[in-house]
Amino acid sequence: MSDITLAEIEDAARRLTGHAVVTPLLESPLLNARIGGRLLIKAECLQLTGSFKFRGAFYRLSLLTDSERRHGVVAYSSGNHAQAVAAAAKLLDLPAMIVMPADAPAPKMAATRQWGAEVVTYDRYREDREAIGAALARERSAILVPPYDDRSIITGQGTLGLEIAAQAEMANARLDGALVPCGGGGLIAGTATALTARLPGLAIYAVEPAGFDDTLRSLAAGERLANPPLSADSLSICDALLAPMPGALTFPINRRLLAGGLTVTDREVAQAMAVAFAEFKIVLEPGGAVALAAALTGKIPCRGKTVAVVCSGGNVETAQFAAAITAARD
Amino acid sequence: MSDITLAEIEDAARRLTGHAVVTPLLESPLLNARIGGRLLIKAECLQLTGSFKFRGAFYRLSLLTDSERRHGVVAYSSGNHAQAVAAAAKLLDLPAMIVMPADAPAPKMAATRQWGAEVVTYDRYREDREAIGAALARERSAILVPPYDDRSIITGQGTLGLEIAAQAEMANARLDGALVPCGGGGLIAGTATALTARLPGLAIYAVEPAGFDDTLRSLAAGERLANPPLSADSLSICDALLAPMPGALTFPINRRLLAGGLTVTDREVAQAMAVAFAEFKIVLEPGGAVALAAALTGKIPCRGKTVAVVCSGGNVETAQFAAAITAARD
Repeated sequence: MSDITLAEIEDAARRLTGHAVVTPLLESPLLNARIGGRLLIKAECLQLTGSFKFRGAFYRLSLLTDSERRHGVVAYSSGNHAQAVAAAAKLLDLPAMIVMPADAPAPKMAATRQWGAEVVTYDRYREDREAIGAALARERSAILVPPYDDRSIITGQGTLGLEIAAQAEMANARLDGALVPCGGGGLIAGTATALTARLPGLAIYAVEPAGFDDTLRSLAAGERLANPPLSADSLSICDALLAPMPGALTFPINRRLLAGGLTVTDREVAQAMAVAFAEFKIVLEPGGAVALAAALTGKIPCRGKTVAVVCSGGNVETAQFAAAITAARD
Repeated sequence: MSDITLAEIEDAARRLTGHAVVTPLLESPLLNARIGGRLLIKAECLQLTGSFKFRGAFYRLSLLTDSERRHGVVAYSSGNHAQAVAAAAKLLDLPAMIVMPADAPAPKMAATRQWGAEVVTYDRYREDREAIGAALARERSAILVPPYDDRSIITGQGTLGLEIAAQAEMANARLDGALVPCGGGGLIAGTATALTARLPGLAIYAVEPAGFDDTLRSLAAGERLANPPLSADSLSICDALLAPMPGALTFPINRRLLAGGLTVTDREVAQAMAVAFAEFKIVLEPGGAVALAAALTGKIPCRGKTVAVVCSGGNVETAQFAAAITAARD
């Protein structure tokens, strides 16, 4: 694949105007004082459908031809991409069928249905969602919208990087680094493409849940390595970041543009959710809080630095959120 | 007092630029579909210090003369105005002393101290905070910064109305009404001044906690009526909205510009906090959620209407927030 250009990401930004939220870049002077650095929090949980996934999904669907639109789209997702594709399809008035794990968080599945999509469930420990999605797409002559390994999806997510660069400039901030959650790597590939085009030399790190650090290990090895197969025992609370391995398209981009990978534990993630609640008044899901967790626990030094922190989503069940913020305060 | 002009509020907006957050106007198409109307949520909990109070406080302090700055400021507040004055004083580099009730929410008191202010506590059932504040100000030749009954404070809060008008236009929304939380009436007086200047004829309602509906009753009577004296039994969970009666300056403005008053119960407020959590991924304190509660419970008809809903703050203790969102889901 040829490199995604800044011009393509700017085109995506134009198509998203009036549909996606330009989410704010928040700051807490009190938290900054405690850290001794400056964190700029990209509150992407405020995006339509509660996560960044809307950017890529809407952009991809906005590119469909008239004949493609008639057959609609198929997507597979643990939840956030599902809602995003369902919402984009609704707004663009075309049919969507979404393949979701049977144990996906209830609010994510409910929202996907409320957006008018047809939901098909599968067993995430035994079945192959990519195969199910591909078969359904073939059956219906529908377009398959992959969650991350797709040029348009990566380009759409890149609009988040464009916004960070513009908003940091408005805030008179010169970024030293950026921390971005990483599952399959689409968000960070697009964001890094935009950010490094605007701010050459910026140190950008992928943040993953401990035990699901396929990107960290792949970056170190110089080749795509997989996570161990999912089992009920090995699950992280970061349900949005459990992709099996770096994407064939995302990995070369990330290998070229990223400074490295970092991991955080479930406990560190819960504490970051509590800090986001108390200091920024935003709701983060576990997967949306990993970058903040990395900043707060000093996985890279933030003292004296200005660091953009992508908080990528907020679709979390009530009981899990209440437990996380309560436990972290104990 | 002569009427506050749009030009004054625009001047306040200029002074706040680069210091205050232009908080987003959020929308949930799924929630809108359930309601059959269009709610535009002004997420002011994302403001610096977690509430709208920063707007008025920073604007008031930015107007101090050099000699006034040297003696600093004194303020009394149950919490949000306290943090706001402390933060504005810190950013403008002048001393602040804050008079707070001894039983103010712990995070509000802690944040006020972290901003560098000196905190003096009083007993809210027995002592008169206005008298304590006035005496301290006299003693130190400091400027007293009242929480609402002050021309500059009202003007500063009015910048929120300016933003709503501009953001609604950007979203192609023609507002039919606006719902605004009301304690002493400063936020709604400023907001209504800006909104009615930009959108003449807009129906704006003050929303108060049941049992603390002094503005509703005063609007109906055409004169300022007080709430019953505070007692430990009569407290609402909306600690930010317990001002004793409409202000001498705010009431004439509100009498001229408002369509009326509405009240909501603690239970309705907790449910609104849960909806804000689930649909908008924002953290609201009880007092910040009253306008949303009024919209969700149909205190004015929202079907077929486009209504701006001011969600004015998010400074809430962890346990209270966890309890509210959990209980509301049961």
